[in-house]
Amino acid sequence: MSNAYQRLEQHYRQLAHLDHIDAVVLWDEATMMPVGGGAARAAAMATLAELRHERACDPALGELFERAQDEDLDDWQRANLAHMKHDWVRARALPGDLVGARSRARSLCEQAWRHKRADNDWHGLRPQLEEVVSLEREAAAALAQALGCEPYDALLDGYNPGLRQADIDPVFAELERFLPDFIERAEAASERRGAVTPRGPFPVAAQRALAETFMKAMGFDFEHGRLDVSHHPFCGGVPADVRITTRYREDDFTSALMGVIHETGHGRYEQGLPEPWREQPVGRPQGMAVHESQSLMFEMQLARSRAFMTFAAPHLRRAFADQVEAQPQAFDEDNLHAHYTRVRRGFIRVDADEATYPTHVILRYQVEKELMGGRMTVADLPGRWDQDMQRLLALDTSDNYRDGVMQDVHWPAGLFGYFPSYTLGAIIAAQLFAAMKRALPDIDDQLTRGDFTAIGAWLSDQVWSQASRHDLNDLLVQATGEPLTVGPYRAHLEARYLA
Amino acid sequence: MSNAYQRLEQHYRQLAHLDHIDAVVLWDEATMMPVGGGAARAAAMATLAELRHERACDPALGELFERAQDEDLDDWQRANLAHMKHDWVRARALPGDLVGARSRARSLCEQAWRHKRADNDWHGLRPQLEEVVSLEREAAAALAQALGCEPYDALLDGYNPGLRQADIDPVFAELERFLPDFIERAEAASERRGAVTPRGPFPVAAQRALAETFMKAMGFDFEHGRLDVSHHPFCGGVPADVRITTRYREDDFTSALMGVIHETGHGRYEQGLPEPWREQPVGRPQGMAVHESQSLMFEMQLARSRAFMTFAAPHLRRAFADQVEAQPQAFDEDNLHAHYTRVRRGFIRVDADEATYPTHVILRYQVEKELMGGRMTVADLPGRWDQDMQRLLALDTSDNYRDGVMQDVHWPAGLFGYFPSYTLGAIIAAQLFAAMKRALPDIDDQLTRGDFTAIGAWLSDQVWSQASRHDLNDLLVQATGEPLTVGPYRAHLEARYLA
Repeated sequence: MSNAYQRLEQHYRQLAHLDHIDAVVLWDEATMMPVGGGAARAAAMATLAELRHERACDPALGELFERAQDEDLDDWQRANLAHMKHDWVRARALPGDLVGARSRARSLCEQAWRHKRADNDWHGLRPQLEEVVSLEREAAAALAQALGCEPYDALLDGYNPGLRQADIDPVFAELERFLPDFIERAEAASERRGAVTPRGPFPVAAQRALAETFMKAMGFDFEHGRLDVSHHPFCGGVPADVRITTRYREDDFTSALMGVIHETGHGRYEQGLPEPWREQPVGRPQGMAVHESQSLMFEMQLARSRAFMTFAAPHLRRAFADQVEAQPQAFDEDNLHAHYTRVRRGFIRVDADEATYPTHVILRYQVEKELMGGRMTVADLPGRWDQDMQRLLALDTSDNYRDGVMQDVHWPAGLFGYFPSYTLGAIIAAQLFAAMKRALPDIDDQLTRGDFTAIGAWLSDQVWSQASRHDLNDLLVQATGEPLTVGPYRAHLEARYLA
Repeated sequence: MSNAYQRLEQHYRQLAHLDHIDAVVLWDEATMMPVGGGAARAAAMATLAELRHERACDPALGELFERAQDEDLDDWQRANLAHMKHDWVRARALPGDLVGARSRARSLCEQAWRHKRADNDWHGLRPQLEEVVSLEREAAAALAQALGCEPYDALLDGYNPGLRQADIDPVFAELERFLPDFIERAEAASERRGAVTPRGPFPVAAQRALAETFMKAMGFDFEHGRLDVSHHPFCGGVPADVRITTRYREDDFTSALMGVIHETGHGRYEQGLPEPWREQPVGRPQGMAVHESQSLMFEMQLARSRAFMTFAAPHLRRAFADQVEAQPQAFDEDNLHAHYTRVRRGFIRVDADEATYPTHVILRYQVEKELMGGRMTVADLPGRWDQDMQRLLALDTSDNYRDGVMQDVHWPAGLFGYFPSYTLGAIIAAQLFAAMKRALPDIDDQLTRGDFTAIGAWLSDQVWSQASRHDLNDLLVQATGEPLTVGPYRAHLEARYLA
């Protein structure tokens, strides 16, 4: 006879299997599905969500949780039990028909976003977005009651268990004080460096081959993963089968390449999760802030360093030999590094440089807090967006919905509460990198050689292999000696952009 | 309040949604999944199968069936109710753990087959195949008891509801009498025509573009479907999102091209299923024999005709201009037609010509009947295979497992009872084509122009839009005036190959 804890593991293993299926089908929808398949797909996914939800809130689990509490469990098992219970409380807060309706509305709105964004058609998207927002508010209210927190906190908790506005607000307030002056100085310094922009065309096949070369150098395991194309780059799939996507532009190779490196960071985290726990709640990534810290570790801390550029530049010059011939100075290592660390305010978050990026996130965080709190309507969004972009970055986005309020997939896909993870991730990445540098004093040499062995081993020890065993601050204290702190991030930004 | 029938429709719509998910994930496994993802995937799919099964045999449906019987239903609804009940009886016959074990064993064995076949490693595959066979026998026995038929009949019934060995045996017996002499004469006639084989290389990109051209001409809807690459060509997905696959060889364009046209026939059937019924049992294809009749209609009756070659040849010559220059006579219409209708015994079923193909199927049918009946073991398979290939086609397959008993995905994937559908499909295709020709006397002109409008409309009326509303013989009587008959098939073979 199996004990209560073992029966719970069996139950959560089944849920993980359904999440596996869900991840594959979501990837398919974003990369492969022909446009006419969307309506039937949304209906099918809603049924899967309902079924998963029915299992996830099985009332019989309550008694198993109580019995398991008294069983002889090790640390991992005890952490796993806590995650199970947390999941269960969240699941039971939501009525089944809301789960189905939410899944359906999110699928259809995300599908609509793909072409309506291209058409700059805000008014066409609005009714579907209103439906999504209304269902997210309903879910947030129900979850908030179960968790005893504010509605927006309950959404944050879905991506970063335990994280609250009270944790984020002071961190973002510190950045808000720091950023305006920093951005101005960084922009001026970048202007003085005056990088030459490499001119294309850069054939997609060459970009793709280059991306694979760097992914392999960085330790991505193609036996357990793939690289494809989608409208909005992401890292999906499951640890045994990680699906990275990007999008290529023939006139610019930097964005696809850095995008791939970014997703490779996500991918290595997934591939590095501890095998025995992969189908259990404790075996999941710690949270999306830590997940983003891994992508930003790879992209910002490692790949945009001067040291990595020494390794990368010869590969770039070989891949784009025709372009190098036309414009040799653009492919010089110092210029490439200057190009890759250029600071210039722009409309688009995913194309933003490291210096201006947090401003894009803070804007979205404040807007979605108000939207979910019912203090703003979907109709108010474009006006508020224009106003904030003007105030924060002095950019005019009026009537340009495509590059304004419609630019991200997150809101159409119902992912309210996700955005702060990006900037928290950047802060965590800097904090982890400072600690890693102490442990690996010759890290610059390693990057110059494109050798990620020791880097991967350190991240695996400190982050990947830990999965969800610790909360965020415990993880950080173990890895860096300190809880979450903005200091190393500010120091990194100043060192890189004001030097 | 909804009545019992409506509640049943809701229940079966949910099952169709799970089948949708299953179809997408199966397609992914065959086309996209990296090899290291296989074990986790098999586990996830097994859970999905168990969950689907749990719903499919819900005991509460019994009372709904009884009540629905007395409700006011139209013909479609009544046929739908009969299919639901049939599905329910089949589902309830199988214990849930058998369903999971079967799904897992099939996934793993199919994954193993992909590389073990390449390595000609029969002994490596055998243990997994034995596991699959043992589980299929167990399932067949349980299903047979519920349906009141023999075990192998119960497997046949899974692909063609109501079809029994007693229906197939006399048809195949007639072919066994007809084929040996026919093949000999057809081979001699083909030899006399002496087609020149076009020499490659034929670049994959050009083959792929050509395939799309023909798919579009034949009315395949790319808004609701895709074309990709897999080890074993198939047509998967769902009616709103049909996934066709093929495999390309640089030294021969004919097999990929005819393969694509074959799958296009399957695809148009799926895309032509009646929209209001697509998520109900009655809205499924009539059965796999009729499904194969549509692929063989497109491939054998339409595309390998002399008339279609007039349309196709200029496209081929444009696509392979370099090869045409080297060998102009090979791309002449008469030669291409002779090449496309060449008769020559070979090892491989999927590469077999129309004349020898049924022999491959009859061999498999007889072997799998004995295997499922427990009168043969997996260990006996290679010996029996060699013996039958020697007897039926005078070919020596000893020690060549790859091109012998390991060539097809069906047995590793547990699809026992499927093979007869191919030859029944060929017979049905000939019978339908003869009727279509009476309705469309200028069909040759249409094919010469590559115009599939009237052909598509006739097939849609007679077959696609009918879905599973009728049993096979009723469908055939309505479309052709006769139940299943071998006459038109024999007449077609004689006219094409002995003329």
